[in-house]
Amino acid sequence: MDSFMQAALDEARLGLAEGGIPIGSVLVHNGKIIGRGHNRRVQKGSTTLHGEMDALENAGRLGAEIYRESIIYTTLSPCPMCSGAILLYGIPKVVIGENITFMGDEEHLRSRGVELEIVNSPECVELMAGFIAARPDLWNEDIGEP
Amino acid sequence: MDSFMQAALDEARLGLAEGGIPIGSVLVHNGKIIGRGHNRRVQKGSTTLHGEMDALENAGRLGAEIYRESIIYTTLSPCPMCSGAILLYGIPKVVIGENITFMGDEEHLRSRGVELEIVNSPECVELMAGFIAARPDLWNEDIGEP
Repeated sequence: MDSFMQAALDEARLGLAEGGIPIGSVLVHNGKIIGRGHNRRVQKGSTTLHGEMDALENAGRLGAEIYRESIIYTTLSPCPMCSGAILLYGIPKVVIGENITFMGDEEHLRSRGVELEIVNSPECVELMAGFIAARPDLWNEDIGEP
Repeated sequence: MDSFMQAALDEARLGLAEGGIPIGSVLVHNGKIIGRGHNRRVQKGSTTLHGEMDALENAGRLGAEIYRESIIYTTLSPCPMCSGAILLYGIPKVVIGENITFMGDEEHLRSRGVELEIVNSPECVELMAGFIAARPDLWNEDIGEP
């Protein structure tokens, strides 16, 4: 696993240790992490800070040119909200830890020209599958499912 | 203008009075406002709290059944990120103050079965047109444009 996906996975595990949903993300510009984050639903009672959103939030206010030269790494396939944020800011590439436990809006991202790299890391799958089995209620809440 | 769009417009004006970007939103469930918010880019240095996102954040954690019976009102056509959040939570209807100064991802929302009602309120247009003319830099930053 490359160091950026490892950093996203470290964020996911930090979230789990906090009692949260284990999804992590980092925003990388010119080979350097400029934002890192993890899902904060439990920790902050947040309905918008998914892993990718938290990484974008923590990166702070940036000009469009920075986003357009960046890559976002996420341990899990990005949901419609996170996919929309990637499109809003024109981030051209997403590296996805896995899309086996959850398939996000990859089709929509591809249709708008975003490059996707799917790692399908066993560590990412195992982390998420374990969480979903343990807390299906919390997981369904996070993805808007009954 | 109906009272919910008026509440969204009040939020937008509050944002402007704070030195922020004047876009407001309310989430309505069974005829009652359960979340209200406005763009917080300037106020909180936030890159994710657009008006609709702030309303969803302030509504707090909700079960899927609540979202699926709700309507979101927004003074401006929802960008890709806010459109994605609406899709994530399965909100079936969006009432849009105007889509003249900015056209969001309405096509994507419609393609996924979301009902859109476009008010095209002169008050919403005037507020946003005035802001864009005064602060094009800030506006471009908010929509990821150079």
